Amino acid sequence: MAATIFVLNGPNLNLLGQREPEIYGAGTLADLEKRVAAKARALGLTADFRQSNREGELVDWLQEARTGADGVVLNAAGYTHTSVAIRDAVLACDKPVIEVHLSNPYAREDFRQHSFISDIARGVICGFGPLGYDLALDAIADITRS
Amino acid sequence: MAATIFVLNGPNLNLLGQREPEIYGAGTLADLEKRVAAKARALGLTADFRQSNREGELVDWLQEARTGADGVVLNAAGYTHTSVAIRDAVLACDKPVIEVHLSNPYAREDFRQHSFISDIARGVICGFGPLGYDLALDAIADITRS
Amino acid sequence: MAATIFVLNGPNLNLLGQREPEIYGAGTLADLEKRVAAKARALGLTADFRQSNREGELVDWLQEARTGADGVVLNAAGYTHTSVAIRDAVLACDKPVIEVHLSNPYAREDFRQHSFISDIARGVICGFGPLGYDLALDAIADITRS
Amino acid sequence: MAATIFVLNGPNLNLLGQREPEIYGAGTLADLEKRVAAKARALGLTADFRQSNREGELVDWLQEARTGADGVVLNAAGYTHTSVAIRDAVLACDKPVIEVHLSNPYAREDFRQHSFISDIARGVICGFGPLGYDLALDAIADITRS
Amino acid sequence: MAATIFVLNGPNLNLLGQREPEIYGAGTLADLEKRVAAKARALGLTADFRQSNREGELVDWLQEARTGADGVVLNAAGYTHTSVAIRDAVLACDKPVIEVHLSNPYAREDFRQHSFISDIARGVICGFGPLGYDLALDAIADITRS
Amino acid sequence: MAATIFVLNGPNLNLLGQREPEIYGAGTLADLEKRVAAKARALGLTADFRQSNREGELVDWLQEARTGADGVVLNAAGYTHTSVAIRDAVLACDKPVIEVHLSNPYAREDFRQHSFISDIARGVICGFGPLGYDLALDAIADITRS
Amino acid sequence: MAATIFVLNGPNLNLLGQREPEIYGAGTLADLEKRVAAKARALGLTADFRQSNREGELVDWLQEARTGADGVVLNAAGYTHTSVAIRDAVLACDKPVIEVHLSNPYAREDFRQHSFISDIARGVICGFGPLGYDLALDAIADITRS
Amino acid sequence: MAATIFVLNGPNLNLLGQREPEIYGAGTLADLEKRVAAKARALGLTADFRQSNREGELVDWLQEARTGADGVVLNAAGYTHTSVAIRDAVLACDKPVIEVHLSNPYAREDFRQHSFISDIARGVICGFGPLGYDLALDAIADITRS
Amino acid sequence: MAATIFVLNGPNLNLLGQREPEIYGAGTLADLEKRVAAKARALGLTADFRQSNREGELVDWLQEARTGADGVVLNAAGYTHTSVAIRDAVLACDKPVIEVHLSNPYAREDFRQHSFISDIARGVICGFGPLGYDLALDAIADITRS
Amino acid sequence: MAATIFVLNGPNLNLLGQREPEIYGAGTLADLEKRVAAKARALGLTADFRQSNREGELVDWLQEARTGADGVVLNAAGYTHTSVAIRDAVLACDKPVIEVHLSNPYAREDFRQHSFISDIARGVICGFGPLGYDLALDAIADITRS
Amino acid sequence: MAATIFVLNGPNLNLLGQREPEIYGAGTLADLEKRVAAKARALGLTADFRQSNREGELVDWLQEARTGADGVVLNAAGYTHTSVAIRDAVLACDKPVIEVHLSNPYAREDFRQHSFISDIARGVICGFGPLGYDLALDAIADITRS
Amino acid sequence: MAATIFVLNGPNLNLLGQREPEIYGAGTLADLEKRVAAKARALGLTADFRQSNREGELVDWLQEARTGADGVVLNAAGYTHTSVAIRDAVLACDKPVIEVHLSNPYAREDFRQHSFISDIARGVICGFGPLGYDLALDAIADITRS
Repeated sequence: MAATIFVLNGPNLNLLGQREPEIYGAGTLADLEKRVAAKARALGLTADFRQSNREGELVDWLQEARTGADGVVLNAAGYTHTSVAIRDAVLACDKPVIEVHLSNPYAREDFRQHSFISDIARGVICGFGPLGYDLALDAIADITRS
Repeated sequence: MAATIFVLNGPNLNLLGQREPEIYGAGTLADLEKRVAAKARALGLTADFRQSNREGELVDWLQEARTGADGVVLNAAGYTHTSVAIRDAVLACDKPVIEVHLSNPYAREDFRQHSFISDIARGVICGFGPLGYDLALDAIADITRS
Repeated sequence: MAATIFVLNGPNLNLLGQREPEIYGAGTLADLEKRVAAKARALGLTADFRQSNREGELVDWLQEARTGADGVVLNAAGYTHTSVAIRDAVLACDKPVIEVHLSNPYAREDFRQHSFISDIARGVICGFGPLGYDLALDAIADITRS
Repeated sequence: MAATIFVLNGPNLNLLGQREPEIYGAGTLADLEKRVAAKARALGLTADFRQSNREGELVDWLQEARTGADGVVLNAAGYTHTSVAIRDAVLACDKPVIEVHLSNPYAREDFRQHSFISDIARGVICGFGPLGYDLALDAIADITRS
Repeated sequence: MAATIFVLNGPNLNLLGQREPEIYGAGTLADLEKRVAAKARALGLTADFRQSNREGELVDWLQEARTGADGVVLNAAGYTHTSVAIRDAVLACDKPVIEVHLSNPYAREDFRQHSFISDIARGVICGFGPLGYDLALDAIADITRS
Repeated sequence: MAATIFVLNGPNLNLLGQREPEIYGAGTLADLEKRVAAKARALGLTADFRQSNREGELVDWLQEARTGADGVVLNAAGYTHTSVAIRDAVLACDKPVIEVHLSNPYAREDFRQHSFISDIARGVICGFGPLGYDLALDAIADITRS
Repeated sequence: MAATIFVLNGPNLNLLGQREPEIYGAGTLADLEKRVAAKARALGLTADFRQSNREGELVDWLQEARTGADGVVLNAAGYTHTSVAIRDAVLACDKPVIEVHLSNPYAREDFRQHSFISDIARGVICGFGPLGYDLALDAIADITRS
Repeated sequence: MAATIFVLNGPNLNLLGQREPEIYGAGTLADLEKRVAAKARALGLTADFRQSNREGELVDWLQEARTGADGVVLNAAGYTHTSVAIRDAVLACDKPVIEVHLSNPYAREDFRQHSFISDIARGVICGFGPLGYDLALDAIADITRS
Repeated sequence: MAATIFVLNGPNLNLLGQREPEIYGAGTLADLEKRVAAKARALGLTADFRQSNREGELVDWLQEARTGADGVVLNAAGYTHTSVAIRDAVLACDKPVIEVHLSNPYAREDFRQHSFISDIARGVICGFGPLGYDLALDAIADITRS
Repeated sequence: MAATIFVLNGPNLNLLGQREPEIYGAGTLADLEKRVAAKARALGLTADFRQSNREGELVDWLQEARTGADGVVLNAAGYTHTSVAIRDAVLACDKPVIEVHLSNPYAREDFRQHSFISDIARGVICGFGPLGYDLALDAIADITRS
Repeated sequence: MAATIFVLNGPNLNLLGQREPEIYGAGTLADLEKRVAAKARALGLTADFRQSNREGELVDWLQEARTGADGVVLNAAGYTHTSVAIRDAVLACDKPVIEVHLSNPYAREDFRQHSFISDIARGVICGFGPLGYDLALDAIADITRS
Repeated sequence: MAATIFVLNGPNLNLLGQREPEIYGAGTLADLEKRVAAKARALGLTADFRQSNREGELVDWLQEARTGADGVVLNAAGYTHTSVAIRDAVLACDKPVIEVHLSNPYAREDFRQHSFISDIARGVICGFGPLGYDLALDAIADITRS
């Protein structure tokens, strides 16, 4: 049976394509979801693509991934830098979690230099725009296969 | 048509008048709403006054302001000092946002000295109690007019 | 009439017994609720035991405690280290609040060394696992009695 | 009798309109003085408008305000971030002092993030250009009236 | 045979009841010793209650506890924040050590925010006055029993 | 003509497979070179794979890439955290540079948390072992194609 | 001939007796001058007592002391914490300079904990109110005599 | 009856005259004791002069001063910078305590820039050698008289 | 017509030759003025040489340079490290400003390591004594010519 | 006559062999004393081997070494990181002092990275277990001989 | 005989004119070498102009300057901010060394604010582009002549 | 067969005897090599003594020691404080490495207080001049024997 990957997106990512396109690109969240679905299909994976502005809902989904998913691609957006609750949920999740960012946080404000997720993620990919999700799916396919 | 201003209030402001009145004054949130409505009317503005204890709901409202409002008066209360998600929503909002605080955060604890909003707000007003909202409406009227 | 104590639990505590049992113990949240209920009964208290992954919901409950409870036992978990909103709700609560942690945060990561609650709590108890809740109820019984 | 308000301006504000107009606007200090006078008249106040490049002169004027003014609007410009002497004069002044800045210091260099005046001012208004002086006069009118 | 618990008190606790009673309460050290003895009896424990103003003597007693006690309740007072020697003695002690403070150090000066003992103690209890010693004995009874 | 990608490896990577295999994996540098060559072929790229223990040699190669390569995959290893000279060479290189690390530096010592390259790289990939080089080649293929 | 001592007072000290009397005492600057004159006479010294709100004037006077005085008692008030220019003038002065403060700066705000003068002064006296000037004159008498 | 003043000296002061005479002067501790006794007599005070190398003994003496002395002159030497226990004893002492240092700690190593005593002492005198003790006795005479 | 260069000197430089000659050299300010005049003449420049101990006067002169000079050589001495007002005046000046120091501030106290002027000056020259003024004039001649 | 070397050991070293043997080794303090005596004999030295848990006693012994010893080998254990009093005694001692540690403090907690002794010791030896004492005696033999 | 000056250039300076010309100017390293040669000739000096990307080679050349040169003009580029080895070589060099930078590092990234060379260089010149080398040669001519 | 020990020396140590002899002593590197050879012979060891000014060459030699040596004595000189690459090579080396310094870095500049090697070395010896190499060989003989 196809492995299921949760692709979880945090606050303000529902504005993709509208907000600061010079940083985040012109594609919308729907475009991104389509791209992710296609890539997942190509890799024989099922992608469950979600977005929420609420920290608690992201915690719920990470808890759900304990039994409902084989891996997680997580772009926690603004919560990346402030949420110990999401970090604890990642720790509790027991599935490989890959941290993705569309932009390169190291090239931005100081408070974006620290992530509560990076040191406990399986790996980190950032700065490649939507392509970064493809790479993360490649990686998770490789990891769940081995 | 009258410009619409979102007047958004963050966590614990629903307790106005009950909580630490020596800091926040004796008036309730309903009193504040009435004062804001009157001032808005006098300036020919429509004020949409809301309060929430949830970070994600404030993010939603700031996103809604992209198309539904001409300006925002934002008192993010406790989230002022901790929320990158609200900051990102302010950045995404594309409408003038004025930061207001009833009390003077600079006269309080160290962790209230830093705001994730001030450097991207159009302006900041603090320490004047409910009068601060009047001033913010005056400012937003001036800004949206020009 | 029996005093009512809110026993409030923060994010990921619903995973007790499943998540990092070497840190948090093997008992589940239901086990903990039962233990707390029994201890409360023995002390002549009514315990209202709740858990939420959402910061805003914990703020709501602390506000509710202003009129609905005689004291609060609070394990804010991951929000302990990041939430000014919960801190403000504790300040607004006007009932004795006791901070409890199952594990000893001082023996863990650096970011767990700072609590936004400890300096305004009536007292702090940590490191004793579920027993810590018993001790907190003993304390709150003693405090509300005097 | 009309209340007298000292409107005190610090170093380099005499260059208004000439210096970095993209930050400070195109109006001159004389323009600002006229605007302030008009606004004061409308509020039934007398505005005593002054500018100095010298820290000690600003200290003198704040001392003079003890007996010669009913309130102070203070834009200490560069001395805001470096002068304990002006801070002490504000503390000694015993009249409400409102801190105003034309630009938004939080959006500028690090050394402009700290003010020696904010925590002891009655309130702070910044980022609104000349309009900020109007708002400050509104506030001081409200405060001296009550 | 009854387990023996060392209850060790650090510098200036001999002044209990005389020194800053608004922080430390009105009871004397003798009152505290009586309370501890009674509580210990009720739990079937023997409490060996001592106080010293000398860092080295506290080190000696913690070493003595290696063979002479089944557990330690330690209020190191001022040495909590400065003594690596006591920390090393706790590490060497091989018996459960519970850190207790009458007052809540987190609500006091900055230098009281760091303890050299908390991260290696079995648990920490603070802010409950003399009741804290009861809770610590409850805890140590529970721990030594299991 | 096939695009040429420099794949540059820094100090101690010649010891791959021998040194700390629990961190860096069991494959040797020769194994990695073969994998990279195969992946490059599959993408229609030419990979020029090099390793040096000398900071200055890596600077030379990055300068050479200005005219000799279409993109760079750079694992600067220990120099990542200390070399302004390599940073300047990356800035001067005018070709897309992707930073790769076999291990996850965020999960290691503090001094590995800062990279002099991340904020100027096109993107960053870390924590995936040799797979990370595949992902980087995928990315560079995508970037040089567009 | 009697030795001449410059007794130099910095900004806001002209408000003595009016400003924050709970910190600075009820006596005026004139009272202080009289007390200093009397004490000087008793010691066979001539006291030249001055006050200025201007940093540059204090620099001038310290330069004047090179040839016009045998010692200096300096209360630089707010400039103590911010003036490198006064520090350099003290260094240039070549006469013993004693730093005096009426209040105890160590018991006040953080920014008053650092003095640009203390490490180059002959000695420091603080916290004794006007008595501190007497002690400083005693000291300077002793020093200039030996 | 003559007021009794404890003159307490900390570690290594028994080596006065032998140790680093270019910093501490050539007089011995016995010389200092004689000078202090003479000065006390002249002021109608009784000086109880003591020295100890032990932190705990200094704590004991400060406690003894609660009932046995009218004031304390304290040179805690090396413990000045490290002892919270002595700080707590000063707080508990309820008698005026004057901090004295022979040398000027501000002109020495960084770790001597912070005193655990200065902010709670009545006043601080440093840098005057043995004369500093005379000044401290003058001050304490003045304070105990008023 | 010959270009006019303001050569502005800050506090205590009027003491040149008298104060710390091992750091600042034996020549007086008059000597320096003569050397500067000669060098300027040789370069076909008019040097307007001034010195002040007052921060505000230096601000005035920098403002005057907007219309009265073609370039500025600025040795702000002690104000270099503390004055935002002078920095703002340099920013407002719109003429090339070259920062000069006689001594090498990097080889001196920590507080001399930071300059409020260096990052906005056209260039910085320090450590060469009076020769540094020659070099600065060479540079300004070269800059104003091009 | 044989030179006398004080070999001074600080707090908790009396527990050698019992406490954390994976760090400190299995030998006891008596074993260490024997080894030191043998090595000293072989070098023609007399070793005076002592241990104390008290800071003040170590200060006394260092003072005694001024006249009673030709050199000191000092393992101040936990006091290494906190004691200015011992530092001052080392400074006063006027005999070569060699700092020894059984374990390697640089590989342990952060607070063990700073020693108050290292910068004033003749040399430092750490990480070699009991062998370190042999090396220290070799060194002191060499130094006292030359 | 003409004095010989080593003009040493660090990493990436071989790219002058190609790399970030808006910062470093349009001239090449060969242009710079010619300019330096001409200026040296005019001053009667022999300039030995070299460039290397290797830290160790710069160390070698500085060592060579001990006997082979009369002075050094050093632009260590990226190694300026990271190399203790070059610093030690400058210290060992015993010839006057002048630090030069084409751009103004104070106006750039934070990590360029610290130089390991400035405090031990004879003087520092930065921000003047190639002209800075002329000024440095002027200075070294003046210094070696005196 | 005799064990082989690499004795590796970093940048500028080739200048021993010429550079800062008050810190490093009058002996040359050749003298040191002879002393080391003699000591090694006496211990039945073969010493392979090398020096390089290049970071990369030291990395090479440490890698070579993996198979070519039984232990390493390493004086990395200036690279001690800046090189993660050398640290990684030490980690990879799998042979006991002893860190040696001729001078005492703790008594020197701040940037010499941190070593990238100390926490992973077997032991550290510093401050004894050439004797330190003897002690290190004694230690390595003892360690390789056991």
